[in-house]
Amino acid sequence: MEKAVKVGLLGLGVVGTGVLEILADHKDKIEKSIGGPLVVTKALIRPEEDKSALAEKYQLELVTELDAILNDPEIAIVVEVMGRIEPAKTFIKKALMAGKNVVTANKDLLAQHGTELVNLAREQQRNLYYEASVAGGIPILRTIANSLAADDITEVLGIVNGTTNYMLTKMVQEHRTYDETLKEAQELGFAESDPTNDVDGIDAAYKMVILSKFAFGMSITMDQVKIKGIRGLAAEDVSIADQLGYTVKLIGSTIKNDDTISVEVGPVLVPHEHPLASIHNEMNAVFVKSSGIGESMYYGPGAGARPTATSIVADLMTIVNKMKKNTVGHRFTGYTQPTKITSPDENISKYFLSLEMPDEPGQFLKLAEIMTETKVGFEQVVQEKGDGENARVVLITHETSETKMGTIQQEIKEKTSYKLLSLMKVMGE
Amino acid sequence: MEKAVKVGLLGLGVVGTGVLEILADHKDKIEKSIGGPLVVTKALIRPEEDKSALAEKYQLELVTELDAILNDPEIAIVVEVMGRIEPAKTFIKKALMAGKNVVTANKDLLAQHGTELVNLAREQQRNLYYEASVAGGIPILRTIANSLAADDITEVLGIVNGTTNYMLTKMVQEHRTYDETLKEAQELGFAESDPTNDVDGIDAAYKMVILSKFAFGMSITMDQVKIKGIRGLAAEDVSIADQLGYTVKLIGSTIKNDDTISVEVGPVLVPHEHPLASIHNEMNAVFVKSSGIGESMYYGPGAGARPTATSIVADLMTIVNKMKKNTVGHRFTGYTQPTKITSPDENISKYFLSLEMPDEPGQFLKLAEIMTETKVGFEQVVQEKGDGENARVVLITHETSETKMGTIQQEIKEKTSYKLLSLMKVMGE
Repeated sequence: MEKAVKVGLLGLGVVGTGVLEILADHKDKIEKSIGGPLVVTKALIRPEEDKSALAEKYQLELVTELDAILNDPEIAIVVEVMGRIEPAKTFIKKALMAGKNVVTANKDLLAQHGTELVNLAREQQRNLYYEASVAGGIPILRTIANSLAADDITEVLGIVNGTTNYMLTKMVQEHRTYDETLKEAQELGFAESDPTNDVDGIDAAYKMVILSKFAFGMSITMDQVKIKGIRGLAAEDVSIADQLGYTVKLIGSTIKNDDTISVEVGPVLVPHEHPLASIHNEMNAVFVKSSGIGESMYYGPGAGARPTATSIVADLMTIVNKMKKNTVGHRFTGYTQPTKITSPDENISKYFLSLEMPDEPGQFLKLAEIMTETKVGFEQVVQEKGDGENARVVLITHETSETKMGTIQQEIKEKTSYKLLSLMKVMGE
Repeated sequence: MEKAVKVGLLGLGVVGTGVLEILADHKDKIEKSIGGPLVVTKALIRPEEDKSALAEKYQLELVTELDAILNDPEIAIVVEVMGRIEPAKTFIKKALMAGKNVVTANKDLLAQHGTELVNLAREQQRNLYYEASVAGGIPILRTIANSLAADDITEVLGIVNGTTNYMLTKMVQEHRTYDETLKEAQELGFAESDPTNDVDGIDAAYKMVILSKFAFGMSITMDQVKIKGIRGLAAEDVSIADQLGYTVKLIGSTIKNDDTISVEVGPVLVPHEHPLASIHNEMNAVFVKSSGIGESMYYGPGAGARPTATSIVADLMTIVNKMKKNTVGHRFTGYTQPTKITSPDENISKYFLSLEMPDEPGQFLKLAEIMTETKVGFEQVVQEKGDGENARVVLITHETSETKMGTIQQEIKEKTSYKLLSLMKVMGE
């Protein structure tokens, strides 16, 4: 049995507590795997927090100053589970500068300042791992970095936000409204009281930035991601999509087109028979298309204290193995390509359009004229029976470019009195 | 750019050709990832084979003697893609003895002689990798060995045979018979002309032996696996199961019960809402239950030249990375536990029983008596309208032990004239 490897925790909320639990519950297996104990000896908390029961249970020292961890020569690895950008960012930088290896689950931070942190880790010859930052319990980053290293990935499509997937599942299966399902998600504790990051697609966008780096080696910024959420999505449109053979899902996508990529988050019509259509409730999944393997999918819980903590402990064990072999300092992913974003002309998809138009003769002709002028055909049209005043018309276009779709939106705005209820991409078979 | 790492191929069939293709197609990405070229310089073929076109296209030397590869000091890694036990086993042992690292996709060999080969590799301080041996394109072994190392796995359930999954998908969705779907699978090239290994569950059993080692650290032998195939499965039973809310799948399972495991292959009733129920056609999936992550699933193609070759090349790249860091010699999985098999008394499940009984009064009472005597309750019964002569009775039991189920079978045999049409386990929700 070798000497224990000692860990300092930054933050002792639900995920931090989960790390202590996983280390305790799976102690024997972990020790067998890495050849010795792995223990948290110190945890940084805020002065006003009372975590004495946890400290006693797991025999660790509570500290309120970062330096108590950084200046402890026995601590080799620091785990950051505070969340938010600051002070997490400063703390991680200080930890790396102090010669510690770092594990974090902080997607906001990685998506916005990942390059800076990864470069600092490399300069310091230390490891920075963050498997838990994307799809909590699914080992998707390690899979892309290792197993798919021999492959040429062309698409990564993810259901990477549990709150919105829960809401959409209920909207599809139980014909409930957006507001009802949001309230339920909040009551169940999936959604925050301010659900903006979830329902507006921002949380999913953070994860797609990180996935784009792993899949395509490109460092993109949040403003290069086209983000659309599900806020206010009409139950009727979800239901019509279902009748047409599609399940509406909030999909994060990063898709290669020659040497450019397009990174988006938005509600998408997924064909019923596609594996992503069967991902229900708060579960997450990442679907990968590649030249060698073809289609593969990785499914599991996207959040939760124990799944997230399990990914963090797997990262800790990877670092310990590297420390023992004296090979720390290698990046989580070393794949680097020049970042190029696909132009709107080259960004091709089918679209689902839901329009409210006056329930009177000639209205549909106007729409047909606009579509013909822009040379966009459509493959399905559903006109719902109007109420005498307004009618809902839904159509699915043939494949067209983002540019042309923009033109159509502009024309509708200028030439008609239609109200655009929904505009969603439609995934191919 | 570093010096090229040279590889010798044993066998140049479809998978061997796939390895050449993947190395050529993804050359740039592979070189970037491992810091230099990775090339096959020699391939061992049988004297009667003509592979000159391939040799020219990929600029490699064809040899007919193993020694031409073993005695080549430039070749660091040998890839075995010949299949079958011999001469593959002897060749791999000789390669390890000659100081080569080895990658193989040979599940038959690994399942039956894995311990011997793994031990030899360790003695020789060389790497032996075999990701492609289980579920071709799905990186399940690496995921269990690395990402799930921090977790405590309790169940691994797999659809790990593409041929039978294709057949069962067609039986469920298109109400076709066993014989029809087998013929179609053979025509499509999924099933061999002798389909024994697929339909009798042997191929799946090989994979469960390997998965048991990774998930639970136990080395089990093929005779410790309870194997039942789908040969002759009645279309009616598949259809009744579907009506009762279950999809019939050939499931390989390795399940922990305290410190014992139970490893089985057989047709199982999977609830429609379970993720494994949506795995269609020839695709494979491995579903893992664990204490930390909870439920996760890994989905992809189980066979095929390019998916299998991609896994092999990922193994090659892992070895090259280890060679460069001077850390070869570590086992693919180091997890080891004493092997203990769950006793039939402790092996608990619900069961689906399909019986043909004389279509006359009092027959059902006999069955009820047998069930009552053995203290096994049932939760669903379906009696199909008989033809005047015989009637089909289907029932799903409450949870009971394998021992009790054996008693029931024995009692039915001794005390009735029923014909047992199917006996399948039923997966819990």
